[in-house]
Amino acid sequence: MFTITRPDTMLSAQIQNKINNKTKPLGSLGQLETVAMQLALIQQTETISVNQPHLLVFAGDHGIARHGLSIAPSEVTGQMVANFLAGGAAINCFCRTNNMALKVIDAGIKAEPADHHHLIKHRLGHGTADFSQQPAMPVDTALQGIKYGADIVDTLSRQGCNLVGFGEMGIGNTSSASAIMAALLGIPADECVGRGTGIDDQQMQRKVDLITQALDLHKDRFNDPLHILASIGGFEIAQIVGGMLKAAENKMVVLVDGFISTAAAMIAVSMHPEANAYFIYCHCSEESGHQRMLQHLEATPLLNLGLRLGEGTGAALALPIIESACTFYNEMASFTDAGVTV
Amino acid sequence: MFTITRPDTMLSAQIQNKINNKTKPLGSLGQLETVAMQLALIQQTETISVNQPHLLVFAGDHGIARHGLSIAPSEVTGQMVANFLAGGAAINCFCRTNNMALKVIDAGIKAEPADHHHLIKHRLGHGTADFSQQPAMPVDTALQGIKYGADIVDTLSRQGCNLVGFGEMGIGNTSSASAIMAALLGIPADECVGRGTGIDDQQMQRKVDLITQALDLHKDRFNDPLHILASIGGFEIAQIVGGMLKAAENKMVVLVDGFISTAAAMIAVSMHPEANAYFIYCHCSEESGHQRMLQHLEATPLLNLGLRLGEGTGAALALPIIESACTFYNEMASFTDAGVTV
Repeated sequence: MFTITRPDTMLSAQIQNKINNKTKPLGSLGQLETVAMQLALIQQTETISVNQPHLLVFAGDHGIARHGLSIAPSEVTGQMVANFLAGGAAINCFCRTNNMALKVIDAGIKAEPADHHHLIKHRLGHGTADFSQQPAMPVDTALQGIKYGADIVDTLSRQGCNLVGFGEMGIGNTSSASAIMAALLGIPADECVGRGTGIDDQQMQRKVDLITQALDLHKDRFNDPLHILASIGGFEIAQIVGGMLKAAENKMVVLVDGFISTAAAMIAVSMHPEANAYFIYCHCSEESGHQRMLQHLEATPLLNLGLRLGEGTGAALALPIIESACTFYNEMASFTDAGVTV
Repeated sequence: MFTITRPDTMLSAQIQNKINNKTKPLGSLGQLETVAMQLALIQQTETISVNQPHLLVFAGDHGIARHGLSIAPSEVTGQMVANFLAGGAAINCFCRTNNMALKVIDAGIKAEPADHHHLIKHRLGHGTADFSQQPAMPVDTALQGIKYGADIVDTLSRQGCNLVGFGEMGIGNTSSASAIMAALLGIPADECVGRGTGIDDQQMQRKVDLITQALDLHKDRFNDPLHILASIGGFEIAQIVGGMLKAAENKMVVLVDGFISTAAAMIAVSMHPEANAYFIYCHCSEESGHQRMLQHLEATPLLNLGLRLGEGTGAALALPIIESACTFYNEMASFTDAGVTV
């Protein structure tokens, strides 16, 4: 579906040399050097850049939420979409501060929202089916979701955007992300389930039990990431997968956010391992399974601020660090330029 | 010398209530909530702000450097000051990206630099004395340094600046910072000495030996932070101490950078414990002793990016996170505003 190639590494030594000749001790800019190298390999240009950075928030509802596994009812998904459109959510604040354009996508929330000039309607239904009883969605719907996500990113790419962050909102979606993690890593549900945005012990046990049941129900389809996505994923997760893969195909930088965004990244990487070279893991969430996901992906996240909100907040907060990496790579003097003794 | 009072905590409950009513799960913005609370207590206003943020880089040379404990000779301090003034160093890049004004202070480098409209000359000498043999500077000089640093910050404060970050440059100053750490924590040199910007095992052992010798030489004066500063400190460190304390007196937010900046913060807090309430510890350096310093100060740094450069780079990179904390505190909708079900 996507033609993704790893960045050409022929220039690696030349890029590393440029970084090493900056007026600083070798390696002393830590992860900013890694980011600069990654962008230089992706962009293959003398100077690297972040152009028209966008944050996409995909919202979807989840049938599994009817079991009361979250601190809030499904209605909150739609209420938060309205909040995003009105500019009042955390992600709006962080995008404003960090000069990131924000787009909100209705991937299939329960009640269809009114039209709004900042809202993209890519509805795949009125929330997924309860995946503890049946597949969350048909495979065709998952494919349509991937296409929807890809279309948005492709449009941005043609407009000149070269960096896109992926956030989400969806009551119940930590359950879906935990199930995806368990399916892809082949580990039990209790090692993947966390407290989401703050559930108690009883809800937590119910969440583990339901996901365990779902994993058993769908296990014969876990040999293929598309079927995992359809069985236990979400509408927002499907569109994020498509967006991430299209971004990688278009050689854009992908900002991965927290637990749910990373679950989508795991599916994307499972479909196309080459895509991972375009991904920056922006933060480590407080959600317990996230750290293990990141280890599995061999990712060192940029931030570790104790966030557990989603929406793309970690991605928006990481953007200035990526921009700072560009600036040092492009503008910092070399030892020769500055007449500094090596 | 300074009149520093802790922020009034009468409004704590009201501020926490405002944070808790934002449209997000309780506590889900992690350290950004801590920063918002700190700024709200310091500023005691309905909305919080970062105004005219400044980064001050204090440069000084160190007599101890003649033993070759660094990867570079003392001349590099002056060369880097020229680099700062020409806009080519890492800190210039990060200040530009993050909209932070930068001022460079010659606190006493070896060779007096030419005048420059961006350079403040507060020279305390041509580098400190070799503190393995004698006090780094007379107590009067340390006091003059504190006054110099305070003067700069006081001027900024009167111009409307309410946040100031402290960076440094000085070949040999990790030796001074390590010695300060050992003296204040009462622990041996080998637990405080790291590889600075990249020395080898032999230099490392020589560094430990010289600092151990210096600690023994000056130990009778370690009952008072001013005498610690004069005995084993640096000209740049003295001015940073003064700047930090004046900022706390003026109820400004202080951004503490890495190992050397934190050594100065430790002296400042040792002189005036109340000052710590105004300090934000911006990052955890790769320099081995820094983490222990932060633990001693009960500080949770914002960033952990593997930096070991100094100059204030960690402070400049943390600024957007602090600004994002302001935006969410000021602008994010409450549950009532947004009609979101609690």
